[in-house]
Amino acid sequence: MKNFHDLPTPSLVLDLDRFDFNLDAMSRLAARSGVALRPHAKTHKCVEIARRQIQKGAIGICVATIAEAEVLARTGIRGLLITAEMVGEPKISRFVEVLKTAPDTMVVVDDPANAGALQAAVAAAGLSATVLIDLDVGQNRTGVLPGDPARRLAANIEACPQLRLRGVCAYAGHIAHVIGWEARRQSSREAWTRALETCDLLRNDGHDIQIISGASTGTHNIDAAIPGVTELQAGSYVFMDVEYSGIGGVDFKPALFVLATVIHRSGSKAIVDAGLKAFATDRSFGPQPHGLSGVSYEFAGDEHGRLVLEESSTTIAPGDKLRFILPHCDPNVNLYDRIHCVRGEEVVDVWPVMDRSGGYF
Amino acid sequence: MKNFHDLPTPSLVLDLDRFDFNLDAMSRLAARSGVALRPHAKTHKCVEIARRQIQKGAIGICVATIAEAEVLARTGIRGLLITAEMVGEPKISRFVEVLKTAPDTMVVVDDPANAGALQAAVAAAGLSATVLIDLDVGQNRTGVLPGDPARRLAANIEACPQLRLRGVCAYAGHIAHVIGWEARRQSSREAWTRALETCDLLRNDGHDIQIISGASTGTHNIDAAIPGVTELQAGSYVFMDVEYSGIGGVDFKPALFVLATVIHRSGSKAIVDAGLKAFATDRSFGPQPHGLSGVSYEFAGDEHGRLVLEESSTTIAPGDKLRFILPHCDPNVNLYDRIHCVRGEEVVDVWPVMDRSGGYF
Repeated sequence: MKNFHDLPTPSLVLDLDRFDFNLDAMSRLAARSGVALRPHAKTHKCVEIARRQIQKGAIGICVATIAEAEVLARTGIRGLLITAEMVGEPKISRFVEVLKTAPDTMVVVDDPANAGALQAAVAAAGLSATVLIDLDVGQNRTGVLPGDPARRLAANIEACPQLRLRGVCAYAGHIAHVIGWEARRQSSREAWTRALETCDLLRNDGHDIQIISGASTGTHNIDAAIPGVTELQAGSYVFMDVEYSGIGGVDFKPALFVLATVIHRSGSKAIVDAGLKAFATDRSFGPQPHGLSGVSYEFAGDEHGRLVLEESSTTIAPGDKLRFILPHCDPNVNLYDRIHCVRGEEVVDVWPVMDRSGGYF
Repeated sequence: MKNFHDLPTPSLVLDLDRFDFNLDAMSRLAARSGVALRPHAKTHKCVEIARRQIQKGAIGICVATIAEAEVLARTGIRGLLITAEMVGEPKISRFVEVLKTAPDTMVVVDDPANAGALQAAVAAAGLSATVLIDLDVGQNRTGVLPGDPARRLAANIEACPQLRLRGVCAYAGHIAHVIGWEARRQSSREAWTRALETCDLLRNDGHDIQIISGASTGTHNIDAAIPGVTELQAGSYVFMDVEYSGIGGVDFKPALFVLATVIHRSGSKAIVDAGLKAFATDRSFGPQPHGLSGVSYEFAGDEHGRLVLEESSTTIAPGDKLRFILPHCDPNVNLYDRIHCVRGEEVVDVWPVMDRSGGYF
């Protein structure tokens, strides 16, 4: 088998020992806390990883796009939860097609008109669908507000005979990266208080609220201890990144790297072949050189990164292959077609990344 | 044929009328100025677009990665110039393979050791290769410095019997986005003065400097008028983006859009299904809603964008399809597998985007 230094660059390289550690740690935490795991596939977009999460006890997989649902359904993964609203065409028709393959696929709803459109499409196909209410607990993007707005939406959904309301999705993405475990815990508990109060109201109204889903990698070990939360949808824990490594209180290991080649060296500068197209650029920080001290990375163009070397004597030479921890794992994986899996330095497998841009596969 | 409103979202949509306008405008400028055009494919990563550039008079195509060279060589495009150093394996072996298909493929060199490695590999295959010196005229990434360092490198290259030194690549990426045509002109002329003086030195040393290549979309109509510059390698002009639209003095039309679906509306907020994975995020600004006033976009997660509506009465509703001008075209195209071509609202073609992450195809 190939050594990873022989790979074309830039490439994504997954250290399977660290990946296994992360999978096991999350499974143990969930089992110990008596909470279910439905990890989010938007991080990895990878069937092989979803399969391994299920093998380690996950009850299903969350997805962000209809294309992710289609691919996972086709490959036999069940217990899918689509955490984005399926609005308009062709999303609704594609959702109905997924239901034919994977009838237990769930979708979130935040709007009566959307519930009506889903009802019509599902009924026309002679099917039914399980839905969760998407609750906005502070992220300010999709979702219905807690309390009465959620109660009104629940009543609208119940009026749709082909839709089964079974719970609530209360993902608090705005809290995922709060620095410091205690500060994060306080924010997350406040968000959950609003969500759980709404669940009580919905139950009092007679709704069958079995599923209460949420939690990021940043809050997984906070939310697992909150009574009432039934499942965790964290995703980034499988890979980790510079951002999650910096918030404290999260004990997973960086497992996914970008491998790059040094293509130039002069004085205290080295240039690698990995730039804006090789790394996520949505954060204020860039990737982190792995196993090197006194070396920092700056973006230097679409296909170039500049390494600033504290000591011009640092032994980095053209042709060297270097690894970098990803700034932000989800959009970074989305830049690649495949993940090269290594044990030590040996490439033992290559896993495809499913469609990246949310369109069709 | 499909109407573009029926496409899955997020999708890349190319307005062919605007694209044709851009192709023609650049061809006319080059012809009028007596300068050759070897446009850069790192912007579009698209064989169909490279073919059309050649049909409109381009003498070849620039590429940034060996994978781009492989795909274009395989599809019959000639006159390729690889504008990044081919350092280490597997790049050098792949370059030799490209030479077997497309013997006129050129590559830049900035280091004697790299010249030696290319010489050895090319000679072992019984081939020869044309190379250009990569000159650092201020971008501070790859490239040899003008003057004596360039002269020493030229002598090193001439000592390699299978390498033919035929010119200089002096791309000044740091000047491409200087705001204001006059300010940009002054910066670009300064950079070219250094490059052209070095070309004179190289010629005095007896080197055969036929090709002097450079120019971005930002400086194309500045550099085309500079005596001595033999070819333009601008790329972004085919698509344009928010960034180039703001620098002044560049008369191409935004032609490439991301199509997104509105999936939520509440008050003065609307949410679209296009976020960090759908748009380039390397600039300080985001995408620009097309044909809408009083609407601005903010990133709201991997798969979400938030539209802030100045008037809460704005008629944007769930299910609407909206178009956005790309913040920065090159890394934005790199997020997609295909480009949907439209005339008016009709989808008339779909063009594949070649490998995105620089690895193999």
